[in-house]
Amino acid sequence: MFRIEYNGSGFAGWQIQPDSITVQGRLQHAFSTIFPNAGTVTGAGRTDAGVHALAQAAHVDIDKEIDDINKCVKSVTALAGSGIAIYDMRRVPDSFHARYSAYRREYEYRCSLRPRPLFSDTVWHVPYIVDWKMADDMIHRLVGTHDFGAFCAAGSETENKICTIYEASLTRRDDLYIFSVAANRFLYKMVRTIVGTVIDIARGRLSSDIDSVLCNRTRMKAGNTAPAKGLILNNVEYPSHVTE
Amino acid sequence: MFRIEYNGSGFAGWQIQPDSITVQGRLQHAFSTIFPNAGTVTGAGRTDAGVHALAQAAHVDIDKEIDDINKCVKSVTALAGSGIAIYDMRRVPDSFHARYSAYRREYEYRCSLRPRPLFSDTVWHVPYIVDWKMADDMIHRLVGTHDFGAFCAAGSETENKICTIYEASLTRRDDLYIFSVAANRFLYKMVRTIVGTVIDIARGRLSSDIDSVLCNRTRMKAGNTAPAKGLILNNVEYPSHVTE
Repeated sequence: MFRIEYNGSGFAGWQIQPDSITVQGRLQHAFSTIFPNAGTVTGAGRTDAGVHALAQAAHVDIDKEIDDINKCVKSVTALAGSGIAIYDMRRVPDSFHARYSAYRREYEYRCSLRPRPLFSDTVWHVPYIVDWKMADDMIHRLVGTHDFGAFCAAGSETENKICTIYEASLTRRDDLYIFSVAANRFLYKMVRTIVGTVIDIARGRLSSDIDSVLCNRTRMKAGNTAPAKGLILNNVEYPSHVTE
Repeated sequence: MFRIEYNGSGFAGWQIQPDSITVQGRLQHAFSTIFPNAGTVTGAGRTDAGVHALAQAAHVDIDKEIDDINKCVKSVTALAGSGIAIYDMRRVPDSFHARYSAYRREYEYRCSLRPRPLFSDTVWHVPYIVDWKMADDMIHRLVGTHDFGAFCAAGSETENKICTIYEASLTRRDDLYIFSVAANRFLYKMVRTIVGTVIDIARGRLSSDIDSVLCNRTRMKAGNTAPAKGLILNNVEYPSHVTE
């Protein structure tokens, strides 16, 4: 397994697609160049076009022993091209699976009320007056096991919309307002729909409260989807017994 | 007075120059467009080409009352073009001077041992094996009032090389190694020379210790100058009586 940091700006998302530059596509190319028999590069989850990752996780089957793992990390990073870097590569048991073994995913979503030239790729500039105290209260109320159908974008093929949010918070750092959400799984565009809805309510555009949006379970009742650029996949966690 | 955040990547530094894109030049253009009689935009200090700022400070004399300060901030930011945003603008007493009234400047310098696609503009990728514990010890030893001539680049016109470093530390966040230095004043390329020297010693390229470099007082004994891209002017502080 290995970790991947990427700047989503230049990519049509994680998942490999013909004729589009994707993170998985670039990594597959890099591994297949070095190891002609490399298997499929399998990520912990797909991220959408424009979404970033600080610590995405993935695995790939290799048919030979890697002697110098640091050199391999450097070669894959170089071959993958700009905007992607891999790190923390290690051999894991055959039973490990980047997607199915993961038990916790953590995202953060970054907003700012003013333009941020130092964070222009990774922050949503929110041009509204927002009641952040109300936003903070709402985000906490999503913690727990619920049907998150209201926050799942159309186009999802997932039947099961039950997720468990372990933690959800809003913090302020460097004049940024940062939503952090950790869950066992996320639905299609779930974090961006949660953030868009919370902001819509906290700026008075939507009069419903978050509990009724959640209970309603249909996407129609939620607010706008916040832009991809503010979203970062911060971590994917695995139980230690599957990685050692 | 007002604060400025800028991404130094696109600028030939702070100071206005004919035929070069500079932060001061862009701000002067913006203010002079809105206020034809605007004075000179005066910053707390010059930053070099490629150096960033989270909270540079500046003042400008305006010959009329500004009715809507938020609107003015937005107009100046729009006219200044990409890579610059101003904020926290307020009227200050005539005695205020962005450079002479400042009593403390804070910089941070960000290093990483691996490529960082999410921070590619603002981090120095250090491709060496570095003893960070040693680096941490060295940076603390610079605190105090000393002649920092050893860390002043050639080309400086400053006679007085005595500075007081109030705080200096090395912290780790998001896999970044961040040097933070606060002082009453800084010499030409001082932070970058300090960081370059500390890294040179902590990776074994330079055998001297930081105290002897400091005591020697000549630039020759110090190490390389770290690249501009890792440096951020984080804050400039003023006594409250000059701003109110």
